[in-house]
Amino acid sequence: MESNVPSSGVNRRTLLSTLAVLPIPGLLRTTPALGQDAGSHLASWNDGPAKQAIIDFVRATTDQTNPKFVPAEDRIATFDQDGTLWVEHPMYTQVIYCLERVPAVVAQKPELKNREPFKTVMSGNREAMAKLSLRDLEEILFATLTGMAVDVFDAEAKKWIETAKHPRWKRLYTELTYQPMLEVLQYLRDNGFRTYIVTGGGQDFVRVYAQQVYGIPPEQVVGTASGTKFGYDKDGKPFLTKDPKLLLNDNNAGKPEGIHLEIGRRPRAAFGNSTGDRQMLEYTGAGDGARLMMLVLHDDNQREYAYGPAQGLPDTKVGAFTEALYDEAKKDGWTVISMKNDWKRIFAFD
Amino acid sequence: MESNVPSSGVNRRTLLSTLAVLPIPGLLRTTPALGQDAGSHLASWNDGPAKQAIIDFVRATTDQTNPKFVPAEDRIATFDQDGTLWVEHPMYTQVIYCLERVPAVVAQKPELKNREPFKTVMSGNREAMAKLSLRDLEEILFATLTGMAVDVFDAEAKKWIETAKHPRWKRLYTELTYQPMLEVLQYLRDNGFRTYIVTGGGQDFVRVYAQQVYGIPPEQVVGTASGTKFGYDKDGKPFLTKDPKLLLNDNNAGKPEGIHLEIGRRPRAAFGNSTGDRQMLEYTGAGDGARLMMLVLHDDNQREYAYGPAQGLPDTKVGAFTEALYDEAKKDGWTVISMKNDWKRIFAFD
Repeated sequence: MESNVPSSGVNRRTLLSTLAVLPIPGLLRTTPALGQDAGSHLASWNDGPAKQAIIDFVRATTDQTNPKFVPAEDRIATFDQDGTLWVEHPMYTQVIYCLERVPAVVAQKPELKNREPFKTVMSGNREAMAKLSLRDLEEILFATLTGMAVDVFDAEAKKWIETAKHPRWKRLYTELTYQPMLEVLQYLRDNGFRTYIVTGGGQDFVRVYAQQVYGIPPEQVVGTASGTKFGYDKDGKPFLTKDPKLLLNDNNAGKPEGIHLEIGRRPRAAFGNSTGDRQMLEYTGAGDGARLMMLVLHDDNQREYAYGPAQGLPDTKVGAFTEALYDEAKKDGWTVISMKNDWKRIFAFD
Repeated sequence: MESNVPSSGVNRRTLLSTLAVLPIPGLLRTTPALGQDAGSHLASWNDGPAKQAIIDFVRATTDQTNPKFVPAEDRIATFDQDGTLWVEHPMYTQVIYCLERVPAVVAQKPELKNREPFKTVMSGNREAMAKLSLRDLEEILFATLTGMAVDVFDAEAKKWIETAKHPRWKRLYTELTYQPMLEVLQYLRDNGFRTYIVTGGGQDFVRVYAQQVYGIPPEQVVGTASGTKFGYDKDGKPFLTKDPKLLLNDNNAGKPEGIHLEIGRRPRAAFGNSTGDRQMLEYTGAGDGARLMMLVLHDDNQREYAYGPAQGLPDTKVGAFTEALYDEAKKDGWTVISMKNDWKRIFAFD
């Protein structure tokens, strides 16, 4: 249950300034293990306001003597995936998966071959494919995923994610997770937080690898979800099939709606990187007590990508960090993580 | 992820006969604490096949030397609520809640006063109200719940559940939980299982009291769910409102579909009491390895109610335990719990 008296923006700001002036040596005395934890946990973070905000939040919420203490059952942290936990350029990984499944779908339904957007995908022209609209991509998603038995989908997606490689690094997509964020996940879990993924990506897709890659079990993955249909095979054995009915579009306003549907508690901490995460961070920040809202800014063209268009970074279709989002972050006391300045390394293999 | 090679019905039967002949003294030697646990945990159960099935299942799944061992992360048990965890007669508690809210709704929307089914509800004629169709009840549900802020709904439902009393026992509905089932919940949790409610009742409604009454946190309540709508109040503060769009009808086939949506794993154990739970038990049983499926039979007219119509019990609108369900239970090795014979007491206050 949510409290009916969440704090105002003023309280959030008060909280953040309070955290900033906390007597840290005193805290270290009451919770010595935490200080050590933070040091060893956040090894890929440079010292700075982003790292400090995470440490201060964890210390305050886990210290029973602190007025910002949060009971264990209420320690919920939600993370966007694409662009927040792993690389989202040049395209969302799941979109690539769906595009690569198109030939198999067309083989089964030849009437799609000369119909857009399938024709463009079959042409193999990457530049034309990059220009497909969101509606085109949705049509492809439904065509490639609908009507499959859930178990078959799981097995196929698992096989793909274990072999498919990113064009730039020639590495598995699952290796392109951000090491500093994996450290935050572990640091939060070691301090009693349950970590959730709340993604615009497909819930079933992310659940296939989330345990292995992020240490996040399937029941803690909230994502865009189609319905399923319960039925029986010819031997009377029950099974679930993926259904074309969209139940939850877990982007923008859909993120807090999905959190309410599948978690039923307001998060204490939320991490994102684009306008699609705005409402999740707003919803998190509107609760009372200790809250942590963070946005990853992709400003490192050398080690990853630079896009935004906040601070004059180039605008791309994927992962829009707009000036308006940047302004809201400043106004509401959300912490912006600069990949360039805050992260010692981006990937485990760096 | 589910395995793609679940066992057949034959394997389930094999499993159950295997469990029945397990050398229990040997098990007690390897896991002595469990034997003691079961004794103290299931204090309100008479010795018999139902109690034994629960103990055998827990021993097998938690004993690392047993081929039926289940790793902790996969220990998921799902429970229907109405008629399985608490009294569902003469009406589902949430239906009573909605009926009692009708006057307040009609006060706000006077045009409903002379329209059915609201007219019948306003008449106060309990007999006529009991005859309302499912469609009538749905219309009332939507009219009474839609458009409310989620926080307001939570606060109102909480207030109601803390004061409303059952007409027969003159006790709070939350006191009318079955003590033997509360013991099963605790016994499973103490052995590393996560216990979920999977209810045809409203997800938001049950989440209001599930922690306090069953020890089940909101994120482990799956139920019939309408959508919500994210928006802002006049001060710009974000909040969620209940939306009339039904996302999940968590009855019958909707139960395995809801389990897939919100848990993403097949349960190891499932408990129900009516045809609305059939597909959940079938889905649970279709997985491989150790599985436990149980049905509560209401055959105790003295201490609770007797209805069915299995074994010649009277047919009622609420909680149909049909002959066909009874036959399926026998055929598939599901265990039927007789309230009359298996439970020493029904309620904590007995």
